[in-house]
Amino acid sequence: LVRDGGEQHRESYQELNGLAQVPTLTWEIEGETRVLTQSMAILEWLDAAYAEPAIVPRDAFRAAQVRELAEIVNAGIQPLQNLALLQKLKAEGIDAKAHGRDVITRGLSVMESMVSQSDGDFCVGDTPSLADICLVPQLYNGRRFNVDLEQFPALLAVESVCESHPAFAAAHPDRQPDAQLAGT
Amino acid sequence: LVRDGGEQHRESYQELNGLAQVPTLTWEIEGETRVLTQSMAILEWLDAAYAEPAIVPRDAFRAAQVRELAEIVNAGIQPLQNLALLQKLKAEGIDAKAHGRDVITRGLSVMESMVSQSDGDFCVGDTPSLADICLVPQLYNGRRFNVDLEQFPALLAVESVCESHPAFAAAHPDRQPDAQLAGT
Repeated sequence: LVRDGGEQHRESYQELNGLAQVPTLTWEIEGETRVLTQSMAILEWLDAAYAEPAIVPRDAFRAAQVRELAEIVNAGIQPLQNLALLQKLKAEGIDAKAHGRDVITRGLSVMESMVSQSDGDFCVGDTPSLADICLVPQLYNGRRFNVDLEQFPALLAVESVCESHPAFAAAHPDRQPDAQLAGT
Repeated sequence: LVRDGGEQHRESYQELNGLAQVPTLTWEIEGETRVLTQSMAILEWLDAAYAEPAIVPRDAFRAAQVRELAEIVNAGIQPLQNLALLQKLKAEGIDAKAHGRDVITRGLSVMESMVSQSDGDFCVGDTPSLADICLVPQLYNGRRFNVDLEQFPALLAVESVCESHPAFAAAHPDRQPDAQLAGT
């Protein structure tokens, strides 16, 4: 996202993702290339395309609670602390890091209150869901913004359970093929 | 949202919606009050709770296209032009209206490109979906920000079909019980 001024701004990428954002999923089906953007649309599609493991509960209200938590990250926090807005704020002389820290703290506080009242080891229940998939990278980002995460014990407990789950471990940013590790 | 400094900031509302945002859905079931926030979680829950009319297509890829368009509004445009951020930008001396106009124009451009390639009278296919439910208020908001909508003929065509649909007509902001009409 920052290498070479941001690979997401390349024309070839913007043909796939008009908002120049990540992620974009592309795949082939019957000789046709399909393209899908927007994190939640991609996650819901993966859930429909691969029956197991289910990442949206079957029960409608539990599914709603999962989507509510996921959307607090996806629509409530992430757009307000993503690179494009922060670069704009910085250019206007605003303390972008403090802005990011504020919106992350506010959103995570609401999630802490919900998750602390929920049952199970994960955000909702005893299996990973959309909510956990959104929470874990948001906590990672919280650390980048120096958010004091100790005030969110229920969220840290979920994160710790996720960290020991092989799918979450394999998805860690530092383990991706194009990761630039600190100091490299 | 602006009356009395914003009714969403009242303590009694924030007990239901920690982010002090709209909407919030509450209902009673077996003597228990349930509360749900986040537009997409509420819409998906309504779709699951009321079989007809379906607002998410059964086909997984069409459902993904619907959610992609809905999320361009929900996560790609709306958080960047909502009242809380605009008030902050304004307080910092930034032209908040121009910022809102930019993000709306950018997001609608991407949607125009997608919808113009889609079949049917609505955003995706011949029945209203989540995508239309998100598009119509975003176009309404575009006018408030003086966005030139003539550059989006495919979106305006969908809007016009929606306007003649009774459910959309009944949901128009000016027809809500607490609407403050211009000049009143």
